[in-house]
Amino acid sequence: MTAAPIALSLGDPAGVGPEIIAGAWRALRTTGPVFAVSGDAASLRRVGAPALSIETLTKASACFADALPVVDQPLASAVAPGAPDPAAAAAIIAWIETAAALALAGEAGAVVTAPIAKALLYGAGFRFAGHTEFLAELTGGAKPVMMLTANGLRCALVTIHEPISKVSGLLSPKAIVAAGLTTHAALKQDFGIERPRLAVAALNPHAGESGALGDEEARIIRPAIDQLRAAGVEASGPHPADTLFHAEARENYDAALCMFHDQALIPVKMLDFWRGVNVTLGLPIVRTSPDHGVAYDLAGKGRARPDSLIAAIRLAAEIAARRASQ
Amino acid sequence: MTAAPIALSLGDPAGVGPEIIAGAWRALRTTGPVFAVSGDAASLRRVGAPALSIETLTKASACFADALPVVDQPLASAVAPGAPDPAAAAAIIAWIETAAALALAGEAGAVVTAPIAKALLYGAGFRFAGHTEFLAELTGGAKPVMMLTANGLRCALVTIHEPISKVSGLLSPKAIVAAGLTTHAALKQDFGIERPRLAVAALNPHAGESGALGDEEARIIRPAIDQLRAAGVEASGPHPADTLFHAEARENYDAALCMFHDQALIPVKMLDFWRGVNVTLGLPIVRTSPDHGVAYDLAGKGRARPDSLIAAIRLAAEIAARRASQ
Repeated sequence: MTAAPIALSLGDPAGVGPEIIAGAWRALRTTGPVFAVSGDAASLRRVGAPALSIETLTKASACFADALPVVDQPLASAVAPGAPDPAAAAAIIAWIETAAALALAGEAGAVVTAPIAKALLYGAGFRFAGHTEFLAELTGGAKPVMMLTANGLRCALVTIHEPISKVSGLLSPKAIVAAGLTTHAALKQDFGIERPRLAVAALNPHAGESGALGDEEARIIRPAIDQLRAAGVEASGPHPADTLFHAEARENYDAALCMFHDQALIPVKMLDFWRGVNVTLGLPIVRTSPDHGVAYDLAGKGRARPDSLIAAIRLAAEIAARRASQ
Repeated sequence: MTAAPIALSLGDPAGVGPEIIAGAWRALRTTGPVFAVSGDAASLRRVGAPALSIETLTKASACFADALPVVDQPLASAVAPGAPDPAAAAAIIAWIETAAALALAGEAGAVVTAPIAKALLYGAGFRFAGHTEFLAELTGGAKPVMMLTANGLRCALVTIHEPISKVSGLLSPKAIVAAGLTTHAALKQDFGIERPRLAVAALNPHAGESGALGDEEARIIRPAIDQLRAAGVEASGPHPADTLFHAEARENYDAALCMFHDQALIPVKMLDFWRGVNVTLGLPIVRTSPDHGVAYDLAGKGRARPDSLIAAIRLAAEIAARRASQ
């Protein structure tokens, strides 16, 4: 099938975005998936990519083998690698908006986002915790779920960027059930799993050891699992997190529902540090991203690896193809 | 060199202890390390091991190839696999005391403990959080540190069996420095590492992201690292925990100092689910154990794997030999 090209937002031009995008294009130019950058063509030319401005996304496929297609919204002035520039913030935001609009209009099959640094954008009026929340707002306000995946492991998160001391207070049956239902629906729709099996992680060591090491399992997580089951979701748990991620355990579920950031990120990054992908579940559009940040300290040195971005582009294309075939 | 035999406490006879001990003996009978069980010989005969009562540990080596030596303190009545019996509690405690006494007297080179279920022992007056705290009391009251190790990864813990909601309140520069110093000393003395490198994990996602995701890194962990460095310890961090455990990162340290249970146990059990070993640092005696529990549901079925116990026995022998050569 001929999928629509992917819209890839450039992210922060002072970070590793331009060079990993150039690397991803070199890796994928003959095989696809085809993508077009929503960003600044000059930033890409500066890292050696033959950026070509295109007017509509339909032109992307024809040129992709020879040039990196760009829906060009130029920066007013060049940004140097490793030197974040507040003057670029409005453009960085606009590139994301354009990518989302292209996907909403059906011209792009998916959105992939290169890294941004939120702190830089706040000065320009950005008021979201990150890409995920911004894209949710741009595409209709659904409550998204962040999922990290590498090497067959999928971890969906109930809480994301929160201090450990606040996690317990943020957990509720409602929050867990909502994340579980969104994950369940995405496993079916986006990953083609007919009867998804969800393994719900415990919060505390030994899953609370019958209350001796914490009561959230009995008070919050178990009731949530009961509600998920009542809703027809094949949910198991609460599982002690330390015995949930080795090879044999991973065979028993299609996704783990994790209570906090590092509970999901430690296993994902151990399984494949370079090719982890962040997928946003529950949006009307398909969206993935690499699982790393702007890495200003690495920018411009030619050492940043495009592996995670390439994996993100490939996964976005797979999900888009699956949605298109439904 | 001829090391003293290891004293292995039987643990709960209703758990998998007897069968994994029998399995460990079959695996090690011709190669060593030599060990003698402190426990009930009849429980070992019941799982097919040719248990032989010995009066002093010096007899263990001579018989080890043909029989499983036991410092026999018999149960009053037999305990069935999977059926924990409160009447056995006093004996279970006494077996640990005997093993510790043998090690303190220098007759045993180390103590290895098979699993116990603490709840069962509390009825008999046991008042410790587990083996680690009990052995610390029996051997002079030093503050021990729990370390988990598998496949070259060593993780020492600042907090151990605590609800996640309490971890932040339990962390202090003092607690982290104490655990760091004990770990540093053990890496030198017990693991033969001349200049140990300690990687101190952060508590919060992204190591707190400059305070946006928690302040424990700036308030507690960084000052502790400064104190450790001032004391001559090569300590780095606070490191975001999700990027601390993949293969390349692991090359940069000899032990990770972890803030809570699953931060250490997830990586250890992912690296080698079957051969993780628990080592108690900071005691006058050498002590290791398998990293799993009694597994009542598995007991008596012949399916329990002795791998972790075997790894624990081997590591105990290595450490004992190193201490003996100093």
